[in-house]
Amino acid sequence: MEHILMKHSFGSDNHSGVHPRILEAIGRENRGFRVAYGDEDYTQKVLSSLENMLGGNCKAIFVFNGTGANIVSIAPFVKHYESVICPSSAHIIVDECGGPARYTGCEFFTVDCPDGKITAEQLRAQMPYEGSSDKDWHHAPKRILSISQPTELGTIYTPDEIKELASIMHSHSGFLHMDGSRISNAAASLGMDIKEFTNYCGVDVLSFGGTKNGLLVGEAVVVFYGPNQNPRNKEIAMNELEYYRKQTTQLYSKNRFIAAQFEEYLKDNLYLEMASHSNAMAQYLSKRLEEIPQIRISKKTESNAVFAILPKALCDKLLEKFYFYIWDESTYEVRWMCSFATRKEDIDEFISAIKTYLQ
Amino acid sequence: MEHILMKHSFGSDNHSGVHPRILEAIGRENRGFRVAYGDEDYTQKVLSSLENMLGGNCKAIFVFNGTGANIVSIAPFVKHYESVICPSSAHIIVDECGGPARYTGCEFFTVDCPDGKITAEQLRAQMPYEGSSDKDWHHAPKRILSISQPTELGTIYTPDEIKELASIMHSHSGFLHMDGSRISNAAASLGMDIKEFTNYCGVDVLSFGGTKNGLLVGEAVVVFYGPNQNPRNKEIAMNELEYYRKQTTQLYSKNRFIAAQFEEYLKDNLYLEMASHSNAMAQYLSKRLEEIPQIRISKKTESNAVFAILPKALCDKLLEKFYFYIWDESTYEVRWMCSFATRKEDIDEFISAIKTYLQ
Amino acid sequence: MEHILMKHSFGSDNHSGVHPRILEAIGRENRGFRVAYGDEDYTQKVLSSLENMLGGNCKAIFVFNGTGANIVSIAPFVKHYESVICPSSAHIIVDECGGPARYTGCEFFTVDCPDGKITAEQLRAQMPYEGSSDKDWHHAPKRILSISQPTELGTIYTPDEIKELASIMHSHSGFLHMDGSRISNAAASLGMDIKEFTNYCGVDVLSFGGTKNGLLVGEAVVVFYGPNQNPRNKEIAMNELEYYRKQTTQLYSKNRFIAAQFEEYLKDNLYLEMASHSNAMAQYLSKRLEEIPQIRISKKTESNAVFAILPKALCDKLLEKFYFYIWDESTYEVRWMCSFATRKEDIDEFISAIKTYLQ
Amino acid sequence: MEHILMKHSFGSDNHSGVHPRILEAIGRENRGFRVAYGDEDYTQKVLSSLENMLGGNCKAIFVFNGTGANIVSIAPFVKHYESVICPSSAHIIVDECGGPARYTGCEFFTVDCPDGKITAEQLRAQMPYEGSSDKDWHHAPKRILSISQPTELGTIYTPDEIKELASIMHSHSGFLHMDGSRISNAAASLGMDIKEFTNYCGVDVLSFGGTKNGLLVGEAVVVFYGPNQNPRNKEIAMNELEYYRKQTTQLYSKNRFIAAQFEEYLKDNLYLEMASHSNAMAQYLSKRLEEIPQIRISKKTESNAVFAILPKALCDKLLEKFYFYIWDESTYEVRWMCSFATRKEDIDEFISAIKTYLQ
Repeated sequence: MEHILMKHSFGSDNHSGVHPRILEAIGRENRGFRVAYGDEDYTQKVLSSLENMLGGNCKAIFVFNGTGANIVSIAPFVKHYESVICPSSAHIIVDECGGPARYTGCEFFTVDCPDGKITAEQLRAQMPYEGSSDKDWHHAPKRILSISQPTELGTIYTPDEIKELASIMHSHSGFLHMDGSRISNAAASLGMDIKEFTNYCGVDVLSFGGTKNGLLVGEAVVVFYGPNQNPRNKEIAMNELEYYRKQTTQLYSKNRFIAAQFEEYLKDNLYLEMASHSNAMAQYLSKRLEEIPQIRISKKTESNAVFAILPKALCDKLLEKFYFYIWDESTYEVRWMCSFATRKEDIDEFISAIKTYLQ
Repeated sequence: MEHILMKHSFGSDNHSGVHPRILEAIGRENRGFRVAYGDEDYTQKVLSSLENMLGGNCKAIFVFNGTGANIVSIAPFVKHYESVICPSSAHIIVDECGGPARYTGCEFFTVDCPDGKITAEQLRAQMPYEGSSDKDWHHAPKRILSISQPTELGTIYTPDEIKELASIMHSHSGFLHMDGSRISNAAASLGMDIKEFTNYCGVDVLSFGGTKNGLLVGEAVVVFYGPNQNPRNKEIAMNELEYYRKQTTQLYSKNRFIAAQFEEYLKDNLYLEMASHSNAMAQYLSKRLEEIPQIRISKKTESNAVFAILPKALCDKLLEKFYFYIWDESTYEVRWMCSFATRKEDIDEFISAIKTYLQ
Repeated sequence: MEHILMKHSFGSDNHSGVHPRILEAIGRENRGFRVAYGDEDYTQKVLSSLENMLGGNCKAIFVFNGTGANIVSIAPFVKHYESVICPSSAHIIVDECGGPARYTGCEFFTVDCPDGKITAEQLRAQMPYEGSSDKDWHHAPKRILSISQPTELGTIYTPDEIKELASIMHSHSGFLHMDGSRISNAAASLGMDIKEFTNYCGVDVLSFGGTKNGLLVGEAVVVFYGPNQNPRNKEIAMNELEYYRKQTTQLYSKNRFIAAQFEEYLKDNLYLEMASHSNAMAQYLSKRLEEIPQIRISKKTESNAVFAILPKALCDKLLEKFYFYIWDESTYEVRWMCSFATRKEDIDEFISAIKTYLQ
Repeated sequence: MEHILMKHSFGSDNHSGVHPRILEAIGRENRGFRVAYGDEDYTQKVLSSLENMLGGNCKAIFVFNGTGANIVSIAPFVKHYESVICPSSAHIIVDECGGPARYTGCEFFTVDCPDGKITAEQLRAQMPYEGSSDKDWHHAPKRILSISQPTELGTIYTPDEIKELASIMHSHSGFLHMDGSRISNAAASLGMDIKEFTNYCGVDVLSFGGTKNGLLVGEAVVVFYGPNQNPRNKEIAMNELEYYRKQTTQLYSKNRFIAAQFEEYLKDNLYLEMASHSNAMAQYLSKRLEEIPQIRISKKTESNAVFAILPKALCDKLLEKFYFYIWDESTYEVRWMCSFATRKEDIDEFISAIKTYLQ
């Protein structure tokens, strides 16, 4: 299959374009001159809206992309000699070509999590024994836990689960990072405001995604510093965060154009409308797949991803006409992603094709 | 002065918006689905056009911004223990919050250059004595020279000057990087194709700017590997460069939208038209300033920047109504930047205001 | 128990002092002046002996300590964006406070290995699928495998096992590092020359330990570049290795005093004599422990370490009088190390004490 | 001249051996077993003596060598995005192969200082203008100044000069590091206790040298946290410093043997006796050179180094029989170092040879 303009792709929510309202918003902002780097009132006003929506007691800044958001999020919280914990499926360890490891210079310890979610028990086993010295110079102290919400496997942490992970980290003077490159899909799935499962649950720093959900370009990093967080956060938010953004190449000169996108994104909950749609499409796909006994849904469909195991022959056949990725080559588990631009017809056509091939 | 939408700003070419043709091009590309990260035919086709325009024997990739372009450009050419040379006014050492130093982990040696241009003589004095051992483990070998074209002070290297610098570096198994965040302004100023003072002069790697000259977002990194370059380059271009882009957070998922901008940017030489205009505006400003004896042009006006020294009282007065930066607080030297969106009227109004203040 | 001068310690082979012959050798070398940093004939002569003993086709340099040896060994073999594989018990990931991760800036991927030895099957599962593109910019290529010989758990790789691991890495253009902080104990255990299970088996780079086996201070790093190794090695050995040593702080100004120790260490196989003794002591301890049914040997005793699981009460009691470390606090597995200075009486006394406590 | 055992060398104080009392002290400590890494009473006791001698309110730890001492000293004081200032002749930027830059990941800004000493005026010009925002994300804040005492050029800062530099750094929330690889020579030259020109003058962190002044191996890093220092220091001293030592490979397992050397070094002021001798030898050499009009002393002789400019022919001739380094190949400036082991006869012989050559 050629890499051409496609009618639809299940490959990634990154394969879709930009929501028309987002492009229009960029067009409206394209007039006059503004001070660069977001040091102007308009960008600051949009950031304030985002901070309010997230429950206040937080500082938000815009960045270019997801890898950048994760590095800017994690770097301020680890000293030279401290380390990071994450599930072994985490984007930061698997899919970012070592960027977070290189930029922080820290060790990353991974934990195998079959459904992409680290449990409180697994986390506790990673931390030093109670009573053991805090100061053993031979071992890099585990200072920050990074989780993805939804996970790389499309599953969702409950608020209680998040709260417990945050609490464990805080009890070791540590921090909780949430990679929310698809955070809107998590909100749609949980039926909750984002603040309810981030700020209020003790998340210390959030990568707030936009590009995968219909923006042209733009994400945010949000440091929370309210009563639920590590007390160290406010200093980082106020005095350090923006240095990290600049140093890691994530400071966009024409920030106003990310601001324009986010203004529109938050207006009338456009972000939620798009995420709800892509989640609904994944649910629909998941449901229709039940009609096909040769295919087994392999992970709970909780956001906009459907994971399934299917016969190799069918998979190869489908790849001739549809675009998607094999997740695990040893088991023929595949991932089908839906996006704001996926239509019911796209799924119906896909299901029809499967049925035809299987005849 | 508030940080609001301004009719005009001399602060930076980053303060202007996006050329209308560029936004339209993004709109046209916003249809259907494409494979992410530029791994598709459309982006590759646009990159090929850029490579051809630059004289071939090169590999171009898209990145987000200037700091990113510089890091992706420099990193592949320095081993852990090697070092970088640059003028002390270089953007990479002054204005990028230590990003290049941090990401490469290398020492950066600076040379004071009054007009922003390092001379062949200054460079030779930095390199080991002929006959001295190449292998003195105590000193980090100086492996890459980074110059800006135009320089941070708006001046321009001649092709012969570039050729000599490249030749010195190559004779020490080294490389020449050109920070071309305003490369189109250099082309307009020299009246030459970009390839004539990059590829053909032995530049090994180029940060090719776009954002400061009317793009929404997007720059390119270009590694040259023809007969004028260090023979090591082809390996880097083919097998390493894209890892560096990913690892440094500079890989944009929706690359197609940078491609769309560059396609339009190169069409009918739009890039040159815009750069010629901003250069002409700087020339016009420079000429009109001759009418004012209290102001002294302090650097040659060779691109789209005008540097001048003016009385403190006048400067303070002007800053109330016009936006620009004081370059050197000890001498009241200021920088006035023109952009593709600067109009003759903006300059006339500025000159009038100066005259009024001085009465 | 106070941290005082002890008659004996099972805590670590680092707790013992220096072999008298080693101290005498330092004394003999303490006369006159020599050029610093090992750039003199005497140090070079001793290094040549070491290289010959290791089968030739290699370059050896001296460093201070084990963490330093590992970093100097690994760093030259990984580019900015490449990664390292090791067992999750590896010293480089657990016990060096993140030094190798920080200095290389690379991701370290760990594999759980119950006996400390990674198997060929485990390694293959870490490497890209045959036929899959070598160039997936999202993932940091796994370039070097680091194994310990003996392992952190006292077990020993056979030459065949090492050969297969090297062969897998070489087939992926990669490298095999051996952390030999106790390499002499491995030689004594296998009854082989060190070259037979390093150089001849395709090991690319070796941390050759000394301090844990009776030296005052000093280790070596050895890069092999013969027919069994990755062809890239010679360039690293000849032109790069010494820069890494200097940059990582591991270049000792008075290198002659490490040379003097190694000269004596290799003379009449003193290194082997000491290692054989400490292995024999571990065997003796292991054998005597069979007399005590409440204690279970938990790992094969193949070098100078004995691992055992014992009742908590007994462990606590023993710790009042003997010095050793609890390896796993959840199972009360302990590690007892023997050294060149451990005497049969020390073990007999220990066994007697255990028996007394258990009565 | 071959690189053999020499009767004397003016090349470096590193070329001499070890003071006999130091070797004897190591021998005395070589008995029994001690806990490794200095976590035992003996090493702690010796460190306490050193801390007392330095005026208290400080924490000292042992490291292997000078480059290590400098990195362990500087790293805790700079965040990812902060930068370092030093004279352009500083050992940390010229002679450590980029180690400090790589390990900290920070920018190093250099200032040209003809006699190796940065002045208060030069330092102030490096710092932000009063009233300018502390938070300009584009520039890496200059957080620590590193000076050498004596400098690389053998000159000495007065206590008042040091006090003023510390005060400038502290007024910018910064720190002062002193590279004291020859600190004992400074004490001998100033005729003062070391604490009087370090602790009492506001130095925040000190590399305390030993190897160049007759030790076998060993230096110390000392963080001061009294009333004259930045209030941040105590936290670093108590909770962070030792992680940096471990991570940078500078934690020696058999620390007791550095402790033994330092115990002897401080006893009856052996350190001062040796440094006074080497300083006196440099004074004697300097004085005798006055007899030779063809040689010009080029730097003040204030410690154990003599810098001089001499005719090329004489220089070449001398290098055939004596060992020393040409400092500046463009001017034939050379450096002659004296050490604790230099004798009056060595200098007399050297002067005689010069006179003979010149006849």
